[in-house]
Amino acid sequence: MPAAAARRQALVDVVRRVYDAHGFVPLGTPAIEHWDALVGPGGTEANQLLFGVEAGEGDELGLRFDLTVPLARVVAANQQTLPRPLRRYQVGPVWRLDKPGPGRFREFVQFDADIVGTVSPVADGEVVAALHDVFVALLPDDADGARFAVRLSDRRILDALLVKAEIPPERGPDVLRVLDKLDRVGMEKVALELTSGYTDESGDPVPGLGLGDPAVAVIRGFLALGGPSRAAVFSEVERFLDGVAGAAERLAGVRAFLEVLDALSLPEHRAVVDLSIARGLAYYTGPVFEVGLRDAESFGSVGSGGRYDDLVSRFSGQAWPGVGVSVGVDRLLAALDAAGEGPEGTGACPDVLVTIMDRDHLGDYAAMASELRAAGFRVDLYAGALAAFGKQLKYADRLGVPVVVIAGGDEFAAGVVTVKAMDAASAADVDSREEWLAARFGQRQVPRADLAGAVGEALASVRPGAPRA
Amino acid sequence: MPAAAARRQALVDVVRRVYDAHGFVPLGTPAIEHWDALVGPGGTEANQLLFGVEAGEGDELGLRFDLTVPLARVVAANQQTLPRPLRRYQVGPVWRLDKPGPGRFREFVQFDADIVGTVSPVADGEVVAALHDVFVALLPDDADGARFAVRLSDRRILDALLVKAEIPPERGPDVLRVLDKLDRVGMEKVALELTSGYTDESGDPVPGLGLGDPAVAVIRGFLALGGPSRAAVFSEVERFLDGVAGAAERLAGVRAFLEVLDALSLPEHRAVVDLSIARGLAYYTGPVFEVGLRDAESFGSVGSGGRYDDLVSRFSGQAWPGVGVSVGVDRLLAALDAAGEGPEGTGACPDVLVTIMDRDHLGDYAAMASELRAAGFRVDLYAGALAAFGKQLKYADRLGVPVVVIAGGDEFAAGVVTVKAMDAASAADVDSREEWLAARFGQRQVPRADLAGAVGEALASVRPGAPRA
Repeated sequence: MPAAAARRQALVDVVRRVYDAHGFVPLGTPAIEHWDALVGPGGTEANQLLFGVEAGEGDELGLRFDLTVPLARVVAANQQTLPRPLRRYQVGPVWRLDKPGPGRFREFVQFDADIVGTVSPVADGEVVAALHDVFVALLPDDADGARFAVRLSDRRILDALLVKAEIPPERGPDVLRVLDKLDRVGMEKVALELTSGYTDESGDPVPGLGLGDPAVAVIRGFLALGGPSRAAVFSEVERFLDGVAGAAERLAGVRAFLEVLDALSLPEHRAVVDLSIARGLAYYTGPVFEVGLRDAESFGSVGSGGRYDDLVSRFSGQAWPGVGVSVGVDRLLAALDAAGEGPEGTGACPDVLVTIMDRDHLGDYAAMASELRAAGFRVDLYAGALAAFGKQLKYADRLGVPVVVIAGGDEFAAGVVTVKAMDAASAADVDSREEWLAARFGQRQVPRADLAGAVGEALASVRPGAPRA
Repeated sequence: MPAAAARRQALVDVVRRVYDAHGFVPLGTPAIEHWDALVGPGGTEANQLLFGVEAGEGDELGLRFDLTVPLARVVAANQQTLPRPLRRYQVGPVWRLDKPGPGRFREFVQFDADIVGTVSPVADGEVVAALHDVFVALLPDDADGARFAVRLSDRRILDALLVKAEIPPERGPDVLRVLDKLDRVGMEKVALELTSGYTDESGDPVPGLGLGDPAVAVIRGFLALGGPSRAAVFSEVERFLDGVAGAAERLAGVRAFLEVLDALSLPEHRAVVDLSIARGLAYYTGPVFEVGLRDAESFGSVGSGGRYDDLVSRFSGQAWPGVGVSVGVDRLLAALDAAGEGPEGTGACPDVLVTIMDRDHLGDYAAMASELRAAGFRVDLYAGALAAFGKQLKYADRLGVPVVVIAGGDEFAAGVVTVKAMDAASAADVDSREEWLAARFGQRQVPRADLAGAVGEALASVRPGAPRA
């Protein structure tokens, strides 16, 4: 619906401004991919969410479930011509055969930013900073930083944890997928799913992974680690993983990433190491992160991402390691709605309605609309059936148009025009022009030549601070 | 690729600005529709272009082939809550199983504007005016109006023609589909396809519709009509259709539409009655129109639309007559490219690259990037592997970044920073900082506090008129 669509557009504009500021450039990818490209990189759960596409030509095709896999395919096909590293962004729909729910849709818009072609931790930090800055821009009065946080961890930490817990690498993706549910289901259910499984509230069986108690004890110990700062949590992790085969090298990479976050001045309370973050997608290999709104926690993460070093080489054999973030536009909108936050979608209705009182003067009304458009206003020239004047006002009221322009034969003869600022009082009960003139809306009759100026003032009176285009 | 994507985004921004000015508000629709909704309204040709979607749940689904049919479905489902009339716009991908060619893609972006819920010819005129204004905005220096024209006709004229030619109504859509090819294949092939059919250059048979010679003679006579103005052509049409059953009422509607175009001051040379315009989609019922670039005629129409009075009632039983226009973003981009026209996609690269000479100062580089972002610049903080300085410059050169910021230990110690405007000379052959400093790029060393000002000046020096955000 228009109000929601205008809000969505305002949100997309905010995100785009932040990505622009961070030097990302647009790069699109197709919605339809070969089935083979889609199956696998996201992991078993993502595989089950794919929509197939039938083109009647025998090719097996599907709709993208994210914007990352198609990016990897496009990068693989264009390695010779792309700048490296490449900072790119893209906004577009993705499709998942998911159970619909609050903020969960089968078709939804994601707004991604990626830096591919580099292993530098500066790239990871810049992507996290861009995500952080999106939420700063969306919640401008969040001075105390209580309304959102980017929570982050690292697959290299989790990989070392799997080694310590003696879980074979091929079980890794399933274990991480279960750990990722910790927020939603709690530790006891996670422990059950890691071992023997359980039956959920709806009576559906949740099969267990068959891990033994020692492995689960290691995982419990890991998830109990914490501290007051990123560095403090990381020290705990270092102690916990001390002596684990391969851990030292992995942790050195994590340390470099955390140092970049410090260098980028990401505040401790808005970029938090949270060891329960694993992310469900199989293709992550380094930092993983997600962001949630504190006032809408039930919506889960409204943006997330991570490093994916092996995704491009899947398509080309050559490595273009990358890192990216995806803002879930539709879920974020739903969460912002629930939290009572902006952005305001001022684009949900025009600034001005030019009413038509006398069809013989259509050229004059059109000239007024043209002039106001040229002055930068968003102008509706009434295009409904030529109805009673009251119906045109009801239309303006229904849409929420703040300013209405009126002229009849008398006004045209006198070279004047009436400009009305619609105030909070509704026009819904007004049936005639006379009633309306008698009502308590602000109105001014001005010389025809002053039309644009008067509309600007009327608009400012009802929308303080409204941008004069 | 980024340059093309930036150009596309600049184009979408221009169209959106024009639609905004005309009072349209955003309203989206899903990409996936029930198969039943998609089959039929576009006609037999559109039916053959549908992609099927497989969701594994037994529902027959497909991808939208335009943005109009889904709009009609959404309007039908929300008649109680939508304002009437509704001016809405939407930009998004559509899919057609078409033969790919220059400017023809299987997935392409359309940018539609519609006014639904009204039969007023003001709505038709406003939509044509919006389309016209899009091209005025895209071709700002087209003072003589030679570069584009909206060509228009009306299905009501064509319906009366079918009556005069004694063609049964059920053959109408096929006949119009053939007439629509006139531009591409010429009158003789159209006449053959209307009658006995022919074999095209590639040896494929083009089946004929089996019309008789008298019908074709009427059509030839009709297509030979013309005149120096919209009113003149219309007078010819009135004479030609004089006495045809039902023609008078139909032509009264067309006359009202043309009068609105006059009232809206649409110039004669940019909004031309062209009786060869029929448009292929079956759902049109009133005015039909298309726009082409004179310098890229081989791309055909890059925007088109018309009135569709029966589309919503197909889904609801209740009439919400509407009119809309669709700008073919991807084909228009290809045509503008071929014609050597804008828009410039300045978003294809960041404004500034902050290079990293000394990793220990990462925090200082990040602070500079932050500060420049806050000042409104699009800033890349180098995120490639920490390589030779020359490689960072080659990266800037490759991307086309116009301004580069440099600081090393000496600069930090002295509280200064170097700002370089990259000029036309390429950095591609420069391997060291020393070589580069010796090259002929403009550069200034400024106090650290003056960074943003100096970057603004450097940017203005290479991009005259560049917006300072």
